[in-house]
Parts: sequence; structure tokens; C-alpha cells
Amino acid sequence: MIAELLCVGSELLLGDILNTNARFLSQELAALGFCVHRQSVVGDNPHRLRQAFLEAHSRADFVFLTGGLGPTADDITRETICDALGFELEECAELLEKMRVFFRAQGCVMPNTNAKQAFLPRGAVLYRDGKLTSPEKNLAYWFQNPNGTAPAIALLTQGKCAVMLPGPPSELETIYRHSLREFLSNWADGAVISHEVRTMGIGESAMAELVEPLLEGENPSVAPYAKNGESFLRVTAKGKTAKDAEALMVPVLKEIKTRLAPFIYGVDVPSIEAVLVDALTKNAQTVCTAESITGGGIAKRLTDCQGASKVLRGSVVAYCDEVKAALLKVPREILETHGAVSEECAKVMAQNARRIFASEYSIAATGNADGENDLRAFVAIDSQSGTKTYCLEFPKGSRQRNRLITENTALFQLFSHLLSITQGEKNRV
Amino acid sequence: MIAELLCVGSELLLGDILNTNARFLSQELAALGFCVHRQSVVGDNPHRLRQAFLEAHSRADFVFLTGGLGPTADDITRETICDALGFELEECAELLEKMRVFFRAQGCVMPNTNAKQAFLPRGAVLYRDGKLTSPEKNLAYWFQNPNGTAPAIALLTQGKCAVMLPGPPSELETIYRHSLREFLSNWADGAVISHEVRTMGIGESAMAELVEPLLEGENPSVAPYAKNGESFLRVTAKGKTAKDAEALMVPVLKEIKTRLAPFIYGVDVPSIEAVLVDALTKNAQTVCTAESITGGGIAKRLTDCQGASKVLRGSVVAYCDEVKAALLKVPREILETHGAVSEECAKVMAQNARRIFASEYSIAATGNADGENDLRAFVAIDSQSGTKTYCLEFPKGSRQRNRLITENTALFQLFSHLLSITQGEKNRV
Repeated sequence: MIAELLCVGSELLLGDILNTNARFLSQELAALGFCVHRQSVVGDNPHRLRQAFLEAHSRADFVFLTGGLGPTADDITRETICDALGFELEECAELLEKMRVFFRAQGCVMPNTNAKQAFLPRGAVLYRDGKLTSPEKNLAYWFQNPNGTAPAIALLTQGKCAVMLPGPPSELETIYRHSLREFLSNWADGAVISHEVRTMGIGESAMAELVEPLLEGENPSVAPYAKNGESFLRVTAKGKTAKDAEALMVPVLKEIKTRLAPFIYGVDVPSIEAVLVDALTKNAQTVCTAESITGGGIAKRLTDCQGASKVLRGSVVAYCDEVKAALLKVPREILETHGAVSEECAKVMAQNARRIFASEYSIAATGNADGENDLRAFVAIDSQSGTKTYCLEFPKGSRQRNRLITENTALFQLFSHLLSITQGEKNRV
Repeated sequence: MIAELLCVGSELLLGDILNTNARFLSQELAALGFCVHRQSVVGDNPHRLRQAFLEAHSRADFVFLTGGLGPTADDITRETICDALGFELEECAELLEKMRVFFRAQGCVMPNTNAKQAFLPRGAVLYRDGKLTSPEKNLAYWFQNPNGTAPAIALLTQGKCAVMLPGPPSELETIYRHSLREFLSNWADGAVISHEVRTMGIGESAMAELVEPLLEGENPSVAPYAKNGESFLRVTAKGKTAKDAEALMVPVLKEIKTRLAPFIYGVDVPSIEAVLVDALTKNAQTVCTAESITGGGIAKRLTDCQGASKVLRGSVVAYCDEVKAALLKVPREILETHGAVSEECAKVMAQNARRIFASEYSIAATGNADGENDLRAFVAIDSQSGTKTYCLEFPKGSRQRNRLITENTALFQLFSHLLSITQGEKNRV
């Protein structure tokens, strides 16, 4: 089943809001095995909406429209699409009553402008369960909106289906989960499953080179991409059932894990910090940070994760030499001889922080994120088994990126350290 | 000038990522007076990309493509679009050398796959300043990418323009601000100017009510919106020249400033933290933070700003009671009687941090961001003139938002404090 999305709203074309509906529907449709070939956005203009809709309807089996079902004059989706497909609108008494109840429940009287939303394609049937009345006929269904007044509407004609959904994400998502997903599952064509392999410490193209033969596969397909200084592989398989799709993926995921072993920190995980907080929680171990260049960013990311209070003891952000000396006890001699941006300084920051916070691990980062010269950072990881340090060199002109990469490196190196300890223990057993 | 956006990437069609590029470009193009009539997304499929591009190129004066300029085999935008418009690709020695330097600066050798990105339309000219070489001819320009390897490319043909931009937002936005905006201003039709009034400490609808009569204006238009726990007003005016548009805005901005005075922290400023770093730099004053609930997030945001090293001395993240007692010298008695989430604790954290870091101001934040009960935070601002505290109460189930709002409150309250001192001094004079 080929699908297209058509989101309606001038606020999207002006960039006032992000199109989160397109993302939500794309994810959900992929999970049902629909192939989304195109997403489009048009404004509140009946002529351009009609044209864009007819193009999409000619190319795809399913067209999903979002937005433009509201009560105001610039809401034109219902009228335009019904007219384009030859459906007449008439007032639906059942819906009108539901809308009045909806307003009453909120302690107010329905404004007259809302009455427009009670108009539905003539003969439209309220979708109630998993069965379609008679899919071969020209038919219209409507879907209750528990969070608002505009129902969703599906128009079945010419062997194709057009679905209109209200724009507010809370309404769209609730209708989808409540009834539309079940309606669509009548057409679901097998299952599509995706897994995301997350790596660090390697660029997108270097990662792609290491798994090159796998990138040519069609089912599963393997696609590299980069985000926030990390490189990901998305592995997607289609099968008759979810189980079939998963089975197809097993050998490919295994091969990827072999080829990218030193760089992978997780599959289908939210972030490196979440993986670290999980691992430390399982080990009942704690960590602290001593930060200069990252200014608290490493601690911030660890505390983004629920449960961080079990593993993070705290952090010292030492954004000047005096604080490095006074709070982190970095010897004056190191600051004067090697400078704050040095391997020696990072090492002592990590060692002293671990002692001050009485934690099993510590992370330190010091460096220059911008300026003209000496753009680099040193990261140190300290634990009972010693101190490891890492050096990063930066290009000019990207302060935020250099800081992000320092955070990433620090978190990933602690992860690698934890992993090597676990593996070492396994090998001894 | 009618524009369309065409974003390329299967990760968008699968819903893996949000299309923030479409939003960024839409906002920027509106500001230049371009009318964006359609946004589309297609996958990494040469046939469908070509078809969608030719449709867009037939409808619009400008087509902006994003994504698909990377080094891997599924990056097909450059080849597909150049072929569709009859431009041949050839290796550009100047660009290849720049790419090698880019990799060398990061301490690595350029992977061979990246060499593909050095191919440009034959005869493409590096865009350097405000002038076009000769706009009437079939011409190609390229635009340097300070944050990555793929340059942007503009193809001028048939009186129309197709612009290809790399997909990573940090690269796309930097190229746009660095050179592409200036290039496009050659076609800007009249002038559309926007100003963004940024507020804190008030919700979007409450803010909208305070400026209600202004929301009905058409030129300038005034639109409220909310982002990251802040409420903004976007004021947009059209005029023959930028000066005309600015003149139209003067009375409206004045009225907004009167109506929203206690909440505004800046107009056209990047963030509250940038405003603070600026103000403290001007005063030659310093700040430090003592953070629990925010886990270093306040210090992180201050250090996001260039020049932060002049104003931030450092921070203690005290994510457990022991650290609050040991590093921030919070008396045991306060932790036992009032608990760590209390006004008393916030107060002492701020006072002691200011002493420890020897700074003019300090910010402290302690609270519970998630859990079942007692979801609240206390923020304290300490200075020579005393300690002020603020209490926030949170709904359940939104850890990240509660932390963000605590950061915002802390930064905004320090800002208000600085402002009241400045105004007090003015009044005395």
C-alpha cells in the first residue's frame, strides 16, 4: 500500500510550527507496512489544496490529510476534498449532539461557528469496530474525536482511500490510536520493522565503509545517517508478519555488530547517557564529572535520564583556573606549566573529582571550544583501574558542535570502559 | 517570488526525524518576502525525486532542496537534480582541498567516499559577495559549508533557481546565514521584516490576552507562539523597503513593550542566557550556580554563549545530600528538618556558592522533577543585596519540561534582578 501525507496549514508554510503530525503518521504507517512515498504541505488555499490532493490521490493508494477541519473560515479541507471526490456534505444529527455534549462537559455552550464541523459526507457511517460495511462501494466513514470536535473522515472511492484528520496533535494521535489504526489494519500489507544501531567514535562515511556490502541489501535495507555528532544505521525489514520481518533481520544485525563492534553503544536505545545510567544502576556504581569546556553539559545529559539520582553524585564546573585550583585541587604547577587545556590537567581533574565525590568513576573534560588557536579538548576517565585520557582536535567556528563532541566522547569513553570491564570479567569466568 | 521546499530523505518518510529544516527555511524565506507555496518530502529514490523536483520547478520560481548531499551511495540529490536540469558534474580541485583541510583539522584523513562531495556542476562559481556574476546565463554557484563537507549549490536556469542544501541542520543553517541569505536577497521582493519579542514568566494565552487588540492588525501582524516554556510575539511588517517596514512597526512594538513590560527579556535576542552573559560582561560581574534538579543545565546554557568564560566562574552540581553538605556546606540540620527540596536549602546553596566561587551573583535550584509527590522546585538568587527565592509547582509526568522551566525561571529571575538594579541606579541619577 502506497501512502502520501498532505498536511494543510499556512502556519506550516510560514514555519511557525514544526510538522510533528507528518512524523507521527509516517512512523505509524511504516509499522503497518504502508510505504509513505511523499509528504506534502500546502496552505489554506482551496485551489492549491485541491490540485495537490488530486496529484497525491492519482499516485497513492492512501492519502492522509491533516489540518483544516476547524470551525473558522480558513478551515477548508473537508469541503475541498469532499468536492474533489464527489461527496456531498450534510449535517449529521448524531455528531452535532456529540459536539454539544463535548462543550457541555467543559461547562460551556457550543459556539455557532462549530456547527460547521457537524457536516459529514452524505451517508457517512461511524466506524465502530474492526469490520468495514462494504468496502467495494463508494463509502464514507467517520471516526470519533475524544479530544475535540472535528471527527476524522475516510472517503473510499476509485479503489483508493482519503483520510482527513484534525491538525492538533493530541486529537490526531488519539483518533489514530483509538480507531483509525484498526480501520487501516484492514489493508495492512505484512509488517515493516526497523531497528536503529547507534554508534559513536566514527563518522558516518567511515561507518558506511565498514558495512558497505550490507548497504546494498533491499530486505532488510540498511541506511546510514548522522545526527548530533553520532552515526546511526537504520535496518528495516518487511515480512508477512512482524516475526518474519524480525527473522530476516537477525543475520544482518549480527554482521553489523561484528563489523562495528568497537563503536556500537546500543540498538533501539534513546541515548548514550540513558545507556550509561542503566549500566551504572545495574552495577550499583556512581559517577561524577569535572567539567570545563562542557560547562555542565555532561552532568546535564546524565540527569536528563530518569533514575540519574542513583548514579550521579555531582559535578564541579570549573570555568576558570582559580576554581580548578580551589575546588578540584589542580596543582598551580600544572596550570602554569601545561595550562588548563592539557592532558595533565584533565587527568588531575578526573582523579580529584572521583575522590571529592567518592564515586566509582569520574569524567573530566577541559578544552578550547572556540577562538583562534589551540582548539582542542582533553577528556579523562578515572576509576579504580587507573586514568585514561583522550585528545580531540577541533575546526574553527563551531563552538556548540565542539562542545557536543566533547560531551559525546566523554560519555562514550566511560561506556567503553564499563564494557571492557564487563567483558574482562566474562572472559575470566 | 514563489518558492517550494523539497526535502530528501527516507528517514523523514519513515518518521525517524522531525523536519526542522522545512521550518527553518520557511521562516527565513518568509522574512525575505518569498511565498512558500508547498513543502514536500521524498525518499532516497532517484526516479521519485526527479519527478517531484520537476513538478516543483514547473510551479515555483525557487526550489530549495535539503538533504541527500552526503558521501554515501543513497545520497542522490546532487546527481539527480544536476541531471534533471542539464548540468554536468566535475571534480572541483578547490573544494577537494578545502575538504581535505576540514578532515585534517579533526586529526583524520578524508575517507575516499567523501571525494564524491567535491563534484560540482561544471563551471560552478564560489559565491563570495553580494553580486551575481551574470544572472541571465545558465549558471551554477556553490556556497562554502563551514560545519561540514557538502557545499550548497544553486543552479540558475530557465529564469528559475534550484538550491541544494545539506541535510544536517547545523550545516544548512550556517550556510544560510553565512552566504545564502545574501545571495537570495538579490531577488527579494519588497521587504518583509520580523521582530521577535521574547518573554518569560507568562503563558502564551495570558500573554495573548494582554496584547489582544494588537493581534487583529494585518500590517504589522502580531502572532503569539510558545516554545521551550517561553512565550514569544512575532511582529511582521511588509513595506517597499526595509525602512518602510521598520517604520510601520515602531508604534506596535512600543505598545507591546508597555503592555508586557515585566515579562520581556529582549527583542531579537537568541536566548535569555545570551542576554545575561551580555549584561554581566558589560557590568564586569560574575556568576556561579549551585544546581540539584537542573543537574548542570543552567551552567550549560550560560556556557553555550560565546564569552561565558568572562562571567561564569563555575558551578557545583550537588545531586545528593552528601554533596550538598560537603561541597556547598548546607547544614545537616536544614537537610534533616526542611529537606533538600526546600526554600531554606535553595537559599543556603546560593549564599554558600557565591562565597565559594567569589562571584557577584549566584543561582541555586533544588527540587523534584518527577515522582509521585512534592513535585516542585525552589530557585534562589543571591547577591550583595540579599537572597531572593522563588517556588515552582509542577504537574506529574514531565521531567524534562519541569527541569527546563526551573532553568528558565532561574535565568529569568537573575535577569530581572540585574534589570531592577540598573533601573534603580537610573532612577537615583
